[in-house]
Formats: sequence, C-alpha cells, structure tokens
Amino acid sequence: MSLVVRNIARAQAAIVDQLAGFGVATVHEAQGRKGLLAPYMRPIYRPAQVAGSAVTCSVAPGDNWMIHVAVEQCHAGDILVVAPTSPCDDGYFGDLLATSLMARGVRGLVIDAGARDIAVLTEMGFPVWSKSIYAQGTVKETVGDVNLPLVCAGALVHPGDVIVADDDGVCVVRREEAPAVAAAAAKREANEVDKRTRLAAGELGLDIYGMREKLAEKGLRWVDEA
Amino acid sequence: MSLVVRNIARAQAAIVDQLAGFGVATVHEAQGRKGLLAPYMRPIYRPAQVAGSAVTCSVAPGDNWMIHVAVEQCHAGDILVVAPTSPCDDGYFGDLLATSLMARGVRGLVIDAGARDIAVLTEMGFPVWSKSIYAQGTVKETVGDVNLPLVCAGALVHPGDVIVADDDGVCVVRREEAPAVAAAAAKREANEVDKRTRLAAGELGLDIYGMREKLAEKGLRWVDEA
Amino acid sequence: MSLVVRNIARAQAAIVDQLAGFGVATVHEAQGRKGLLAPYMRPIYRPAQVAGSAVTCSVAPGDNWMIHVAVEQCHAGDILVVAPTSPCDDGYFGDLLATSLMARGVRGLVIDAGARDIAVLTEMGFPVWSKSIYAQGTVKETVGDVNLPLVCAGALVHPGDVIVADDDGVCVVRREEAPAVAAAAAKREANEVDKRTRLAAGELGLDIYGMREKLAEKGLRWVDEA
Amino acid sequence: MSLVVRNIARAQAAIVDQLAGFGVATVHEAQGRKGLLAPYMRPIYRPAQVAGSAVTCSVAPGDNWMIHVAVEQCHAGDILVVAPTSPCDDGYFGDLLATSLMARGVRGLVIDAGARDIAVLTEMGFPVWSKSIYAQGTVKETVGDVNLPLVCAGALVHPGDVIVADDDGVCVVRREEAPAVAAAAAKREANEVDKRTRLAAGELGLDIYGMREKLAEKGLRWVDEA
Amino acid sequence: MSLVVRNIARAQAAIVDQLAGFGVATVHEAQGRKGLLAPYMRPIYRPAQVAGSAVTCSVAPGDNWMIHVAVEQCHAGDILVVAPTSPCDDGYFGDLLATSLMARGVRGLVIDAGARDIAVLTEMGFPVWSKSIYAQGTVKETVGDVNLPLVCAGALVHPGDVIVADDDGVCVVRREEAPAVAAAAAKREANEVDKRTRLAAGELGLDIYGMREKLAEKGLRWVDEA
Amino acid sequence: MSLVVRNIARAQAAIVDQLAGFGVATVHEAQGRKGLLAPYMRPIYRPAQVAGSAVTCSVAPGDNWMIHVAVEQCHAGDILVVAPTSPCDDGYFGDLLATSLMARGVRGLVIDAGARDIAVLTEMGFPVWSKSIYAQGTVKETVGDVNLPLVCAGALVHPGDVIVADDDGVCVVRREEAPAVAAAAAKREANEVDKRTRLAAGELGLDIYGMREKLAEKGLRWVDEA
Repeated sequence: MSLVVRNIARAQAAIVDQLAGFGVATVHEAQGRKGLLAPYMRPIYRPAQVAGSAVTCSVAPGDNWMIHVAVEQCHAGDILVVAPTSPCDDGYFGDLLATSLMARGVRGLVIDAGARDIAVLTEMGFPVWSKSIYAQGTVKETVGDVNLPLVCAGALVHPGDVIVADDDGVCVVRREEAPAVAAAAAKREANEVDKRTRLAAGELGLDIYGMREKLAEKGLRWVDEA
Repeated sequence: MSLVVRNIARAQAAIVDQLAGFGVATVHEAQGRKGLLAPYMRPIYRPAQVAGSAVTCSVAPGDNWMIHVAVEQCHAGDILVVAPTSPCDDGYFGDLLATSLMARGVRGLVIDAGARDIAVLTEMGFPVWSKSIYAQGTVKETVGDVNLPLVCAGALVHPGDVIVADDDGVCVVRREEAPAVAAAAAKREANEVDKRTRLAAGELGLDIYGMREKLAEKGLRWVDEA
Repeated sequence: MSLVVRNIARAQAAIVDQLAGFGVATVHEAQGRKGLLAPYMRPIYRPAQVAGSAVTCSVAPGDNWMIHVAVEQCHAGDILVVAPTSPCDDGYFGDLLATSLMARGVRGLVIDAGARDIAVLTEMGFPVWSKSIYAQGTVKETVGDVNLPLVCAGALVHPGDVIVADDDGVCVVRREEAPAVAAAAAKREANEVDKRTRLAAGELGLDIYGMREKLAEKGLRWVDEA
Repeated sequence: MSLVVRNIARAQAAIVDQLAGFGVATVHEAQGRKGLLAPYMRPIYRPAQVAGSAVTCSVAPGDNWMIHVAVEQCHAGDILVVAPTSPCDDGYFGDLLATSLMARGVRGLVIDAGARDIAVLTEMGFPVWSKSIYAQGTVKETVGDVNLPLVCAGALVHPGDVIVADDDGVCVVRREEAPAVAAAAAKREANEVDKRTRLAAGELGLDIYGMREKLAEKGLRWVDEA
Repeated sequence: MSLVVRNIARAQAAIVDQLAGFGVATVHEAQGRKGLLAPYMRPIYRPAQVAGSAVTCSVAPGDNWMIHVAVEQCHAGDILVVAPTSPCDDGYFGDLLATSLMARGVRGLVIDAGARDIAVLTEMGFPVWSKSIYAQGTVKETVGDVNLPLVCAGALVHPGDVIVADDDGVCVVRREEAPAVAAAAAKREANEVDKRTRLAAGELGLDIYGMREKLAEKGLRWVDEA
Repeated sequence: MSLVVRNIARAQAAIVDQLAGFGVATVHEAQGRKGLLAPYMRPIYRPAQVAGSAVTCSVAPGDNWMIHVAVEQCHAGDILVVAPTSPCDDGYFGDLLATSLMARGVRGLVIDAGARDIAVLTEMGFPVWSKSIYAQGTVKETVGDVNLPLVCAGALVHPGDVIVADDDGVCVVRREEAPAVAAAAAKREANEVDKRTRLAAGELGLDIYGMREKLAEKGLRWVDEA
C-alpha cells in the first residue's frame, strides 16, 4: 500500500528564511557536520540559494506519476524532495511541473535522478538540484509515497525538515533542530566576520588559531631545504 | 578497409530547422521516447540549441585524423558526429577544427570523447556536446570511416539523420521519420500551451489529467497523518 | 615525520606570466603532450586562466590542517596544489582560506578533492580547480608535507613547477623546462595564426597539412555511396 | 557529542536465521521491494550468505577508531554496519578486527567504504560486503556514534534491524517487521517451487502468469517478419 | 506500437559453435576490431565461454515484462540480449527466468542492466553478462520490442547476429559476416600457435615482428643510463 | 624523443622476496602509509601475491607497441608497470605477451589500462593487476618511454622500485628504502602476532590499545539507551 500524508508539521517560516541566508556550508557546520546530500547533487544553474520545508516523494524508476500527486501537498515555501526506489537518471521533471510548483509558491526541487527542460527552468528561475540532466521521458504506472521519510542522495529526509540548497549542494536540517541550528549558524557567521578581516589583512590562520605548537607536537618540522 | 562516403541524403532544411526549435525533450517524446544519447553528453556552454544533418565519423582512441577527413564532407547545416572505436576522453577537437567547420556553415559537434580550447569555442559560439573536456592532444596515425552508421554515446546514428541538441543533451531523429516527428512535436507543443496556462493558474495535473481514480485503483491512499 | 620546506626555487615571473597567456592546450602540446592533470579537475567558474608557481601540500582524507600550514609558504604569484593521501571529495577549502591566500597574492588553488563556498569564491574571483564541489567540513588532526613532490590528479608536481590552468583543465610544467616550453608555445601559437586564417577562409586541413596521400596509403578510400 | 548506545533490541534469533536462508532477493521482494543497499556493495568472496542483527557505527573519513569501540557492542549473531560521514574508500577493516569480531560470534561486516587483508579474510571465512577493496590505512583521531540510526549505502539502518547479505548484495529488514517479512518470504518461496517446476518443464511464463491478454491491451503485436 | 518479430534468420549452428571456441578477443580481432560491448559488461561467474544467436529485447527501466515475452522467441542455441530504454541497474533477471531459458536450450544472457540470484545462476551453470548485480525487483507495466535491432552496451545488435562471450566480455558478429569471421579467426589462431611457441622459447616479439627498424624511424633511442 | 633505458638498478632479490611475503597492507603501513596505487587496480584472479622490480613503460592510448619494447628490458624477478599517457581501457596485454614475459621469468604485470585473454592468463598463472578487462585490440604506431619514472594509477614509480601486489591491490616501495621497509614490515608483523592471539581470545582492542581514556577525552559517552 502506498500513502500520501496530507498534514505535515513545518518549521517556522522565519527560521527557514534565516537558514536560507546562511547557505549550505555554514548550516552543515552549525549542526555538527551532518545532513549533507551526496556531492553529485548539483544545481542546474548558478547562483541559486534557497531554503524550504521538505515535501518528500518516492518514485519508481522511470516513472514520475507520484510527482503529480506530491504537487498537491506542496505549500508556499516548500521544497519538493524526490528519490527513486532504485537508481535512475531519467528526466522526471520539466517545465510543466515547474510551472505547477511555482504557481503554488514552491521554492525548488531536489531530485536524486534527472531533470529536463533546464534551459526553460533557468529562464523561469526555478532552481533544481539533481543527479543528472537527461531528457528521457517517464511513464505513469506505479505508485509510491508522499510525505513519508526517505533517503535522498544518501541523506535521511523527514517531511517538514528544512532543506537548504545553494551552489555547494544540499543540506537537510531536522525540523525540531532548525531553531537551534539557525542560532548556531548565526553565531558561527558572526565569528567568521572577525576572522575574515584579520585574514584579509594578512594575518595567518596558523597564528589566529594558535596551531603552531600542536603541529610541532604532532611531529611537523620546518626545514629550509628539501 | 576504411571508407569515406561522399554523398549522403539529408532531411529537408525546413524540417531540420523546425526540429531545432522544439528542443531535445519534445522531439524525443514526439518520436516515442527514443533516440537520446547518453546523459553524460553535455554542452560546453549554455544555452545552446541547434539541429543539423549528421555527418558521422569514427576515430581511433587518441587519434583525430579522421575528423580532418570528415570536415570535407560537411555542408552548411550539418552537425559532425564523432565516436571513438573504444572509450576515450582525449581532446580530439579544438578551435582550429571549429574554425574550419564554421567556415563551412557547420552548426556544431557531437563527440563521444573530449574537446579542448573550450574558452575559445565559447567565444566563437561554436557549440559542442562532449563526454569530457580535456586538453590531451591526439595523433594522426589510424584511419576510420566517414558517413557510415555508428553508435555514438549509446545511440545509433545514420549519416543524414537529424541531430537535435540543447541544454538537455542530444537526440537523433531518423532522416525518413523527420517530417513525421516534426509534425508530432508541433502537435505536442501546441497541446502543452493550454496545459501550461492551466498549471500556471494553479490547476493541478491530478485534475487536468484525471489521475485520481487510476491512482486509487493502484492502491494509493490519502491519510491526514503518518 | 612530516616536513615543511620553506625555500623553494621558482621559475622567473616573466616566464610564468607568458605561460599563463598560452593556456593549457598549447602549453601541453609545446612540452610534448605531457603534464596534464586528470580531466575530472574542473574550474569552479568559467572563464578562468592563470599560471603560477606550485606550492605543494599533502593532506589526510577529511583533514585540511596542512592547508593552513601551506598558506604561510605561499608567495605572490603562487598556486597552491593540494592532494589527499587517499581519495577524498570533502570540502577542504572555502572562502576564509581563499581570503588568506588572496591577501598573499596567490593566484589560485588546484585540489584533487573538494571545495566549498563556491558562490563566494566566484564573487571574490579566486579560481579553484577541483575534483568535486562539496560542503563537507574537515578536521585538523593529522599532519602532512608542504613543498615535497607529490602526485596530484595523476600528475607529478614538484614545488616550484609552473601550474597553468584554464577552462580546459590543469597542466604542470617542470620548472627547469619552463623557459623552453614558453618558447615552444610561442612558436606553436605563431604557427597557428596562419593556419587559423586559412581554415577560416575555407581551406581544408587535408590540404594545408598535405594528408591525402598518407591517408590513401593507410587504405582510406572515398566512395560516392555507401 | 558522540554516543555509544549499549543496549539495543534485537530480533529473535530464529527469525534472523530464517531470513538468512531466503537470501536478499526474496527478502527484498517479501517486504515490498525496499531495504536494498546500493549495488556497489559487493562481497569480498563468493558464495557468502548470512543474516544478523545490525550494530551500527559511524566513522570519520580515513578514521577507523569507532570500529574498535563498536566491537565491544557486538554480540554473537550480529553484523557490524559501518558508514563514513563522507564518502571514503580507505581500508578501515582488516584481519585483526575480523579476528576480534569472530571471537565474539559476529557473522559479518557491511561497510560503505573499503576493506583490506581480503585474502586472509577469505581464508578465515569472515564475509565482508564493502564499497571498495583498498589497503589504505586509517587513523584514530575522531569519534563517531555506535548504535544510532544511520544511512549506509543509501539505506536507513536502525540498530537491531536485521541485515541479510548474499552474493546479490545487502538488504535491511526493520526489526519490528522481521517476523512478518520472514513469513511473507516463506510464502513467496513456496510459491516459487511450483513455478520453477513448470518453467523447467518448458511451460512459458506468458502462460503461467496469464500475460498475453494484458500485453495485447498495451499494444504489443506479434509479426512474422520485421 | 511495440513489436515481437517471430521469425528471424540465424547463422549456421556449426559456425556459431566454431566462434564460441575462439573466444572474444580473437573474434573481435578477426573481424577488424569491431563489435565489442562496453567493458563494464562482466560475467557473473568465471570461467564462462559461449556463443549463440541473438534474440533481442528492449525493456523499460525497472520493468522486465518483455523478457517474459522474449523467452517464447528463444530457440536452442540462442543468447538473449536485453537493453533498457534508459540506463538502469535493476535486477531484471533471476533464477526463474534462467530456468525457463535453460529449458529451451538457451545458452546465456547478455543484459545492459542488472541480474540477481547469481549464486543460484552460478550453481545452475547459466552464464550471464551484465552491467550490475542488484537484487532490485522490477515491475510489469510497459511493453517494448523483441527482435528489432537495438544498441546494447554501446554495440548495435541485430536479431540473429552471433554473440560471443567469455571472461573478456562480449562481442557481436553480424550474421552475414559470421562465416568469414570464423574463417579469419581460425587463420589468426593458427598463426598464433607458432608465435606462442617462439615467444615461450624466449624469442622476442621485437624480432619476430621485425619492429626494431620502424621503432628507430619513429625516434626511439636506447641508452644505457637515464 | 622517446627513450629506452637499458640498465637500471634493482633492489636485492632477497629483499624483494621478503616484501612479497608481507603483502600490500603491511608494506604500505611499514613505509608510513604511502605508495598505494588507486583502488581501481584489481587482480584478474585471486589469490595472487607477488613482488618484483619495476620495469616501467609509457604507452599511447590504444597503442601497445612499447610493451613489446619493454619486454626486452625485463629480467627474471621483474614486474612490468605500464601506464597510458591518457586514460584508456583498451586490452593492451594478452596471452602472447604473457608467454613472452613468463619466458623471461617476469612475475606479473601492473597496467593502468585493460588486459584481455584473462581466462588463459589465469590458467597460465600469470598475475595481472589492471584498471579494466577489455578485449579491445591496440595498434602499434606511437612510441613512448621504457624505464623512465612514471605515474601509474596515481603513484609515482621509478624503474627498479619494488612493486608489491596482492588481492588488496598494488604498492610501490622506493628501491633505496626497500631494506628499511622490509625490516619495518617484519617488525610490524611480529608485533601483530601477539595482538591476533589476544583478540582471538576475546580481549578487546579498546583494552589492548588502551583507548578508553582518550575516547572519553574526545567526548565519547556510553549510554544504556538511545
């Protein structure tokens, strides 16, 4: 039996938007270096930087039927997260589905498979992070699930989790942890301002972070010639 | 023995140009979801969208001699299609060969191997779809065939077939089928105009395509909570 | 024991700058088709074209500590070359390290691993050639070597060698050979000017290079029909 | 903060052993075609067929420290499941760790990274399913978690879940679902006995499964010549 | 519309069997170094060496319905050749289908996708060359074609062509060319007997093939020290 | 200009043989975790374990001419190490070349490209570590170098270095360092005997290596329930 779960909890819009501003690398660090999707997930155009609440959708290989089902469950501010039940590069998603999602205020698509019509998607300004770009059409024969937890590109995503995506890739933040992660990311970013200034002025990380002694303890030696 | 076939039949220019306008995804769908080259074939710059008649050329690994031979067989409106006889990433093609092809009115290159000088090719506006980007030079020692059928990136290409290529990749249309495919693509595109309008207005694909009943038959159930 | 070598010989600045102007494909040809790094090394933005003296740095997988050490050894006009001791896609390098390198006049980074913060690096105009783009953070636990010879993406790099990098990839030129390679590249480029003009005028490579006879000797035959 | 969870619930030994007998393909089908790890997970020797309760372990790239920690949590009948926090091919596991696990009655290892000493492991008869085979040694610097849920080769594994592994790869069965899956697998296997006999006797699947009519409805036509 | 072609021409059984004896490398050389499938096509067990007449079958991704259709078209001495319409690693084929094919005297399977139940297939002695090994089950929803030409793993296969497969991979021989290829292979093999004897006796290929002069002409020089 | 260097220094036979006995993982550890070739280098049959002195050979893509040249430079106890000048999977090496090498007492081949005739090579007992298995034939048109240093599968190999290869892959030991590495490996192996006995008796690595305190310092905590 396949299920569509209609009501899912989402993080506060303000928190989601705050996470969007930090970007993937900072958010990933702020939550203890977890939550990244595999590095093969790339944006179809750059720059792109968004965050949104995950609506999850599992699909059969070569079959995009469930994406049509998932669209109805998407709200403004969401990001649709699609994973096939076995590895597939087909073009599950194109400009018509993007039109439908944009009409609902959806902020982007993350799909562990292929997208197509990427020239049009680029013009429309609808960002997609995908495993591949491939025009291969799909059928509508097999049902899957919407808004159940799934593994997308190696990361576990629960419906309602916050998806942060930018040129570096995609990161998922547990919904319950989103406020704490946002706070930690803000702190981290503030902390980096000073470092950036000092580094730009020519100060060395070796000195700023006080690394020289620990390096020597680990056996590093400086010599004048090889 | 290796052969160069001088006279090949080509599709009508008007049909070729019409196919260019539709793009890869539409053409591929219009001909029954066939003809795509492998998804690893990517354009060296974006956006790019062309169609042309295939001049085919087989090359030895690391040997671009036959491309020089193929240039002579290329006419205005053609696209050169190159496949190595065993997998190779070398840079078979650069700005000099592109200059030569542009002088003849050739519209692009599709190569199941590597290209180089891509910054110059981008400035020149000569589009290339390739498996790799690699500066590795090639030798001129081994002959191959020009204008015999070949398999390029997993697709069978006959000389004179129509190649359609854009940001989504590359598709081949049998020369004999080109008029019918163009007609089917036109119909498909017209059909999508209305759908796009309705989707943009917020109507759901589920309703436009009448999918709800069939989904329920397949066992899909909607629930309020997981 | 791990070593940091402080004093390395570098090629003359004028030679390095001259090599930058030729680009990767020409330089690689000029030195006898050697020195290319693997084709998976791609620039994070395009166009980008630089040359510089290599400061080399080996790092443990998932550990960027030694990059901080290497920064101190970088001079204006250098390019930092980083290779992990086992294959790794992590994001060793981001905008803070780039800020530090830019402050020292470093021209770019070549890393056989991942980079992150690429949107910011793109805005900063700090070019990076990497194997992957990945936000994954790294630790600072294990020491390596700075300015010892290493293999980066399949190519042997000695500290002080000249790194040439552009949209086609990355090439290394032995420091001792740099003047001769620059001279050969200049000659090669001059030689191509005339060829480009003739090709643009519609003359064929087959005729310019006098290939027809040799092709026939190898058994190539031209026929009118297949 | 990193955690080691000492007490985990396991499925009944009888159920685990029953699942071992069915093998991966049957178990995967019996639970609705879910739970497979990625196809790159291969046994280091063949044939091998086991099932056991998962003890999970996350490790830093190039760092096998936590495997030593996980050993202590392994009981007789368990299978150790290891996933790196970012992609890594290093040889985390060799004959010494295997000796330790065998001493505790552990049935095998599933690791989304590399193993080494595979000739010795083969002689010892300790089965390993891994992403790679690589002698690269690892450090002991960074802590991770034992017996928290993790994603291994694309599949979510909870501690105590049943791991089934054979020459076809690896499958995970939720602990709570294990009895039902075992029952469904038994039924499926019984059902296949009759089919196998009929197919071996020359009867066609087309007839056994009554497919001809449905195929014709979908538009399939039989013709005598192409 | 999808088609099943019932009557296909096959090569003479004696020729097919003769080709089996030569193996892939010799046959590929004998026909002018053409016809190889991609090197990712590997046997599920070794050693295995067969030849047979191709029955071709196209399948949708994740859908093995057409294999059941193709079984009926297979005769004793055939090899079933299956290619998905887009790249797929699913386990289209297992022990039940193998039982059915063995009952008909089919000699093996070549599939540009995945197989499963490989431990049982190995015991049965039914050889399979596949792209992957994966337990992932498939659906039966979409029709394709049987006995139309198709591209399998980069090679064009016509129904009735001779497939030769061994531990080195898979090669296709055009049906019309099979007798000539068999004759050329026999000649090649006879020719190698003498060479093997001379090489085993310590004579050098440099001398047997008279290469020294040509090597020197190409600029090769022997020196005593580097 | 291409060179064949005739006289190269080799390590003492006794040292080479001693290194063979330790295997790749131990030797790699004994020399400070360096010298491994990339993990894609796999033996064509298992088990296989050898060591020998490297004769190096660079080849053009798809061109095995220089292997014939290299054979003459091989002595009893050597291992031939071949690397293409650009990535290539072709079958450079088969049973005739193996016959020639065996006649000279050569112990194996390491090739960063493809091998063929692997069924015969297996019967002959001539071990090969290769990147691929592929029947694709090669030409004899382009010269390269024998016994110059080269990079093979990511590792720098000097002629005369000791190659150690087994089921785990391939490792290179600098000729000058071979005696010290052999001594360190012997020590390491002796040290492991005791550990293996204690681990087999059920003692934990945590206790043998005294890891508990350091783990706690790094923040690891043991809890009874998740």
